[in-house]
Parts: sequence; C-alpha cells; structure tokens
Amino acid sequence: MAEILVLGAGAMGSAFCFPAADAGNTVRLVGTHLDQDWIKSIQETGIHPKLKIKLPETVVPLFHDQLGEALDAANDLIVLGVSSAGVRWAIERLGAAWKRSASVLMLTKGLHAHNDTLQIFPDTVRDGLNACGIRDTAVGAVAGPCIAGELAARRHTSVVIGYHAAKTLKTVTAMLATPYYHVDPSIDLVGMEVCAALKNFYALAVGCPAGFLAKQEKPTNGALMHNLAAGLFTQALVEMNRMVKFLGGTEASVMGLAGAGDLYVTCQAGRNSRMGYLLGSGVSFSKAKSNYMAEETVEGAELAFALEPVFDRMFRQGRLDANAFPLATAIMRTVCRDAPFDFCWPAFYGNNRQVSGEAAMSTAINLERRGDVS
Amino acid sequence: MAEILVLGAGAMGSAFCFPAADAGNTVRLVGTHLDQDWIKSIQETGIHPKLKIKLPETVVPLFHDQLGEALDAANDLIVLGVSSAGVRWAIERLGAAWKRSASVLMLTKGLHAHNDTLQIFPDTVRDGLNACGIRDTAVGAVAGPCIAGELAARRHTSVVIGYHAAKTLKTVTAMLATPYYHVDPSIDLVGMEVCAALKNFYALAVGCPAGFLAKQEKPTNGALMHNLAAGLFTQALVEMNRMVKFLGGTEASVMGLAGAGDLYVTCQAGRNSRMGYLLGSGVSFSKAKSNYMAEETVEGAELAFALEPVFDRMFRQGRLDANAFPLATAIMRTVCRDAPFDFCWPAFYGNNRQVSGEAAMSTAINLERRGDVS
Repeated sequence: MAEILVLGAGAMGSAFCFPAADAGNTVRLVGTHLDQDWIKSIQETGIHPKLKIKLPETVVPLFHDQLGEALDAANDLIVLGVSSAGVRWAIERLGAAWKRSASVLMLTKGLHAHNDTLQIFPDTVRDGLNACGIRDTAVGAVAGPCIAGELAARRHTSVVIGYHAAKTLKTVTAMLATPYYHVDPSIDLVGMEVCAALKNFYALAVGCPAGFLAKQEKPTNGALMHNLAAGLFTQALVEMNRMVKFLGGTEASVMGLAGAGDLYVTCQAGRNSRMGYLLGSGVSFSKAKSNYMAEETVEGAELAFALEPVFDRMFRQGRLDANAFPLATAIMRTVCRDAPFDFCWPAFYGNNRQVSGEAAMSTAINLERRGDVS
Repeated sequence: MAEILVLGAGAMGSAFCFPAADAGNTVRLVGTHLDQDWIKSIQETGIHPKLKIKLPETVVPLFHDQLGEALDAANDLIVLGVSSAGVRWAIERLGAAWKRSASVLMLTKGLHAHNDTLQIFPDTVRDGLNACGIRDTAVGAVAGPCIAGELAARRHTSVVIGYHAAKTLKTVTAMLATPYYHVDPSIDLVGMEVCAALKNFYALAVGCPAGFLAKQEKPTNGALMHNLAAGLFTQALVEMNRMVKFLGGTEASVMGLAGAGDLYVTCQAGRNSRMGYLLGSGVSFSKAKSNYMAEETVEGAELAFALEPVFDRMFRQGRLDANAFPLATAIMRTVCRDAPFDFCWPAFYGNNRQVSGEAAMSTAINLERRGDVS
C-alpha cells in the first residue's frame, strides 16, 4: 500500500483516483484553483460533477491551499493531472512546497517547444524540479486509450506507464494494477509521450470525413467515407512513427496502446474529432472555435499552434524532411491559417521510403533502386 | 492503357472496375456461376444490385461461360475477385483456359493451411498455376481499407498493392492510379496479405464490447466501452505484427494501410463486427451464426476454424509461442468451441517482450533483466 497525491481534480485526475484507490492505496486528490467547485461537490456528496459518478470513499478531496499539507504525507507517488497550460504552475507550486522524495507520474499530455526541438512533458517537469533544487526525482507518465468517464465507471481500461528508469517503473506499475486497470510497462517514455500528444492533433484530420460527408450530395448507394477516414488514420500513424523515431523513441510504442490504441479511441469520440467534423464541413478554424467550441479546449488545435513554428524551423534547417509530414502540414495550414483541408495524396504512406534526414524518395525512384527481385 | 480482366462480380470485384476503368483501361468483368443475376442486371441496366450503383459504361460484363473468350484478349492483368472458397475453382478455370502471359492481382483475402504452416493466397495461386504448367506469372494482391460501396461511389480510397517483384509492381500500380484511388506500392506481399486476412478474425474481438455493453447495467455516467475496444484493437495489431514477423513479412505493413488502416475500417462496420457484437452480448457462436447470420459469410469466423488446427500444431511443436497470441487463442475458443469471450489480460501487450521462438517473458523478469538504467 502506497500514499498517492493527485494534483488536478479535472476529469482525468479524478478518474485516476479509481484504480489508485481500488488498488488499496491512500489517495489524496488536490484540486487546482480552477477546481474549487468540484472539490466542494466531492466533499459534500462524493460525486464529481463532470464524471457524474461517486468517487471511492477512501479518496480524500482537498482544496489547492491544502497542497502543502498533502505534501507533508509520506507520498510515494505524485500524480499530475493538471491541464497542459497548468504544467508550469504545477512545477512552481510543487517546487515551493516539496517535502520529501517521491516519484512523479504525469497524466497531462503535450509537447514543449524547447531549444529548437520538442521536449516531452515529463522531461520538462524533471528539468523544472531540478531548477527548484529537487534532484533525482523520476518523472514518468501514463498514456493509452483512456476516456476518463469509462475509467471512473471501472470499465476495462488498458494503459501504458513509462519511466526512463526500469526500477521506478516496476514500483509504480505494481502500485496501480487492479482487475479493470491493465498496465503495460514501458521504458520508451519518449515514444509513448510523443504519440500521446500527437494523437489529438491527428484526430482533427481523421474526424474531417464526417464533415465532408455532411456537405456533399449523397451517392445512390448511400456510401459513407470510412475508407477516407482509415486512410488518414494510417497516415497519422506513419507520421507519428517518423516523429517518434526523430525524437529518439521506438516503433513499438507507436504500434502499442500509446500510439495506435489511443489514436483509435480519440477518433471514436471527443472534442478533437468534433472540431475535425466542423473543419471538414467547410467551417474555418477561427469560426468553428468561436461559434461552436468557444468554451472548450481543443488540445489538437492548441498543439497545432505550438508545433507550427517548431516544424517550420526544423524544415527550413533541413533537420526534418517536410515531405515526410504531409498530413501534419495540412492540419497546421487548416488550423493556423484558416485554410480548408487539402491533402497531398502522392506524398502519403510510403512506409518503405526513407525519410528523416534525407528527402523522401518518390515511389518510382525507390522501385528503380530496388530493381526487380524475381 | 491496359486490358484488364476481373474474375468475380461480387461487390469487391465489381467495385474494383471503377478505378480500373476510370484510369482509362479496357475492363472485362466476368462473373462466376454464382454471379449470373448480377451480370444480367449489369448487362440490362448497368446497375450492380449489391453495390446499388451504375458501373462505368466502358466495363464489359460477361457470364462465366465467356471466360475463355475474355482470356482471348491481350490481357495485361487478371484480377481475382472470387470468394476465398472460390480460389481453388478460379485456379482450375484459369489453368484450363489460360492463353497468354498476364500478371494476376488478388482481391480475395485469406490464409491457406499448407505444409503445417500458413501460406498467403497469392503464393497458393502461383503454385496452382505452376501446377497447370503456367509459369513465370507474377501474382500480387490489393489490401488496405476499402469498403466496396465507397470505392464504387468514387470516395477517396487508399490501398496497398504488392508484388514480390518490383518491376511488375511498378507496371500494375501505374495502371490503376486515379484521383480517388490512392495506391501505395509494396514488395512486402507476405506482410500485407497476413494483415489483410487476420483483420477480419481480430475484428470479431474488437466488436464484442458493444455486445458486453448491451447486456450490462448502465453506470450513472453513461460510460461506454471505447477503452476496452481500443485495448483489443491494440492487442490485435500486436499479434498481427508477431504473425507477420513469423511468416517473414515486415512491421511497416502492420503499421500501414494493410494492417492498422484496414483493421480500423473493419472495426467501424461490417459482418465481422456484427458477429463480435452478438458474441459479446452472450450468444454462442453456433446460435449467432444459425439464428442471426445464417445466410452471411463471416470471414473472420471461417478463418478461426481454418487457423485453429494450424495454431494448435505450431504451439505444440514449439514453433510458435502460445503466450504471444492470447487474443487469437480467446477468439478461436469462442468461435470454435462456443465459449464466452474470456481475455487473459496479464498476457496482453508487452510489445517489448521477446516472443516468437522463445517463451514470452513476464514483465517482472523483463524488468529485472533490463536493470535500472538511470
């Protein structure tokens, strides 16, 4: 039995308390200053208003000004469930009130533009804590297909938990396994975190065929656009794999829960798919955001704005091959420049082409070079 | 411009005529003896009754007894669109009436139990034609996410076309490209065909959460089971990858259109998903087949019956590690032995574990061996 502190009482942070508590741990859930109403509701009724379900009774709900008190406990694990915009805030608060050695586990997803490249959030937090004088803290993450409301309903959920260090990984995964929370351990923290961030971005594109469909004339046989969606889904995986390799992760993560699994679930439902639908139906991003989703965070679109200048620099410096990321380029153009979706089909797929570092070769050239093998 | 003969006027064979004709080729569509009514309808009205759409006017519909006549033409490409049960018949008919050199392209999907292992259909057809004295014929295949009705409505569709020989590959892909039919060439014919066959089989499992959901009490927050479906989707990819490697294919195919792309579209709709739903809702396979889907071919279930004895022998002979295929094992038990779905979660995922050839190591052992790297 371990002592676990969860910082951030949004849907995901609160849902994480279910397996954490059901596995027999002591769990303290500390809201941020934005979560006051939710903590109040949990204290009074046990029910989380967004998850619409009662938290396990052993979970202790605390307000943000009780963080110091929560850090007094002998915490084995500190879980970050803040929004991506709240990561900096969390580092500062933890840095100021840190008491004793604990591992950190991140639920927050995103990529941080850093030194002209992209950094995974766990490394950003590690560096931030280091800068506060807190050293030797292992910072890992949870990724994989996990809709918060389903986890809170104790539906079978499979996640990957990753740390750079295998020893911490073993301790933390052992802490959390329950009959419905299936934990796949990984030491490819880079690969899984790159996938976890990019899936929201690429889901914008996979969602657009439903929008195309809504504005087009129906054919006599009522055909939908699953073929198109599946093609975009595949290209998303292909590009995620290229970015994972570029940043030092491994292909197994792309083929696993953090990559294919989470992209699958993200494309079935959620805000990024809905934005994709709006964009596909011909609404510009600015109009779609202000007219239909003004109050909502569309993580994939926020990432598009963060990625564009970094991609642009890496393309111009020749560190990354623009031909290897045609779908990412189309998404950034649509989100950041209010352009309609326009896919450069001849640049798609080509798993066998060499990318990253050198120019993607055309299929014809590739076949010429291979020669006829039979 | 090429001369193309399509044998088999079912939904997929007929849908293939759209890009084949739109790319400017002469296309003859020869029905089997089971397709008489469809050929008659196309001859009289142009409309394919199952696709519910008019074929391109340049496509020439022919009855099965006109196959010899169709083979008199200077065919560059012979496309096999028969059912998997019809492959043997097609080899015999082609073998008997073969006139001149042509490449073969297969739309039919499946795996053939052969010499205690599994053989991809293109190789089965090549061997069959060889046995009829027809040598040096390149037999390739089309795979990838392609719902026939969508292709016939000229929806954007991305496929992979594969041949062992790069020269034939180049000729055939050049023959078929149109603005809506996006062809990704591959020389990993083994990898793509293994994926194409297995996706129907694994879709049975990914479809079952919808069935579980139908028979369970609803939680207060209305949670669905996307997390579970995505977990099964991931494990399907992981096992497809293991089988592809075992049979000599490459990982890029699993991550591409033939693997992840086609599995994605197969899990969105179709007969295999519907059977998965029935199995998940607690109906036994025999009852589901006879009471609800008696008239329909459920390819994934047919493959389960074909795979079971082969897997069993390979497991017993130690050529394949049973621990590496827990989802396949669960599906075969459910389909071939009328058992309810029962997933062995601790055996799932573990992309980083060594499989194939040696026993899958437990996560604990694996982590011990790796040691703490930081």
